Amino acid sequence: MKVIPGPASQKLGRQVAELLEAEAVHLAFKRFPDGESYIRLKADIKGEEVALIQTTSPPQDTHLMQLLIMIDAAKDLGARKIVAVVPYLAYARQDKRFLDGEAVSIETIIKLLQALRIDGFLTVNTHEEDVLEKFEVSAENLSAIPILAQHLMKKDLKEPFALAPDQGASGLAKEAAKVLGGDYGWLRKERDRLTGEISMEKKGLEVEGRDVVIFDDIISTGGTMATASQILKKQGARRVFAACVHPLLVEGAKDRILRAGAEQIIGTDCVPSPVSVVSVAPLVVEALAQRGS
Amino acid sequence: MKVIPGPASQKLGRQVAELLEAEAVHLAFKRFPDGESYIRLKADIKGEEVALIQTTSPPQDTHLMQLLIMIDAAKDLGARKIVAVVPYLAYARQDKRFLDGEAVSIETIIKLLQALRIDGFLTVNTHEEDVLEKFEVSAENLSAIPILAQHLMKKDLKEPFALAPDQGASGLAKEAAKVLGGDYGWLRKERDRLTGEISMEKKGLEVEGRDVVIFDDIISTGGTMATASQILKKQGARRVFAACVHPLLVEGAKDRILRAGAEQIIGTDCVPSPVSVVSVAPLVVEALAQRGS
Repeated sequence: MKVIPGPASQKLGRQVAELLEAEAVHLAFKRFPDGESYIRLKADIKGEEVALIQTTSPPQDTHLMQLLIMIDAAKDLGARKIVAVVPYLAYARQDKRFLDGEAVSIETIIKLLQALRIDGFLTVNTHEEDVLEKFEVSAENLSAIPILAQHLMKKDLKEPFALAPDQGASGLAKEAAKVLGGDYGWLRKERDRLTGEISMEKKGLEVEGRDVVIFDDIISTGGTMATASQILKKQGARRVFAACVHPLLVEGAKDRILRAGAEQIIGTDCVPSPVSVVSVAPLVVEALAQRGS
Repeated sequence: MKVIPGPASQKLGRQVAELLEAEAVHLAFKRFPDGESYIRLKADIKGEEVALIQTTSPPQDTHLMQLLIMIDAAKDLGARKIVAVVPYLAYARQDKRFLDGEAVSIETIIKLLQALRIDGFLTVNTHEEDVLEKFEVSAENLSAIPILAQHLMKKDLKEPFALAPDQGASGLAKEAAKVLGGDYGWLRKERDRLTGEISMEKKGLEVEGRDVVIFDDIISTGGTMATASQILKKQGARRVFAACVHPLLVEGAKDRILRAGAEQIIGTDCVPSPVSVVSVAPLVVEALAQRGS
């Protein structure tokens, strides 16, 4: 197997290649002055099985087009099998038609990936795992929660409590608690019918004097994490950590969360950022190795 | 037929609908804080033939993803036939593999459009018409050169001369000359082998005291147009106009060309810009009407 680290996941891709003891295909890559991407694969991949590693974090559309162009180029250059490894899958939250006429964008993305005839697909903590059922090829959703929790074990947590900011993410908190050793719970999100303001209600959580880690799949503008951090500090939590798999951190999210009382934000390299201190490389390598065996 | 004006071609799309006396489908459109596009088609298109109008000018990748998402949504909502009208087709200049391993990106774009099962494709002055042969469905390349030339007729041109900045574009100058009434020619582009600088050689062109219009399909950074304008002014042209179908105008192209001596830059609404004074709506309407008949 050869590994092709895409422009959006150069570092992670090279780490995966190293751990797999596989060749990392060198990419000649540039953007033209008008914004178009130029991509050249500088290795012979004819007859090879390749793992193409490219996240689709912002700018999502550019990273998606690069991914699609690379898959097609690899196929055209004779790759025998292509596994697309997309640590953060963009548009995954647009997975249902809530209103008439809405585009279900993630279904389009999946159709496009399949149209280029990939042979397998790997992602990490995608928003709703069910969406992967749209793939006809083998598609796997890995979880980075255990390795995030392992990283947090280094923080000398006092009576750790794993918390999800809403019920939808409660599975993540449960998964984390298995590693952290404490108990887990979730906040209840409520929207005030008059003001439209989102508030959170704590239901029977005992956090006073304890170290709380909030787990979510994604931090975008950070509003949810900030509100949760504030509530926990008010209720006497000793320290609050904001952990997520995909730290998109747009529109000043980092400041917003830290100002709200969180001690630190911890993310993975599914989305490269200043807080992406946990690498999913071992996770990806394990999944690729299992596919091969 | 119903017309869907995409986010990148709202104005042109509505003009096309008006001229066709067809319904323009209203779009609910926004960008999420993280950059993802949200699209909702606010009309019943079940069983309808639709023309989806969306250019792919910069930001190309975002406009491409919007186009693909809209096509898939229209199909999913029951459209009977979909004609994709893409006035400026991004990645069209990446149409050959010059070096081993290079991605031929335009082939990927065409594969993706076909995978979503469009029934027809229209574009305007794409870089190399041959590339449309990759489509299995009917694909047409319209020329906006005659309407650009007609617009220039309003400028009271003195002994007009239609010039292409290189031999590749000479067909455009020839086409323009048929409308302008004068003769036509082209400059010879040469790259200095030592300095890498591009110079242009004028071969037997008589421009002194005449009004010259330079025609090209696309202006990106404007280097070619600026050099050509400078040469023509030096050789005594009375006035120089820079005309193009696709005014991308990146990295200060407009200033560069005007400083070089051109009186005005004139483009079409294939690429919305401050110089896009000529509308291709009548051209698109004619092509759509012919398809229908």
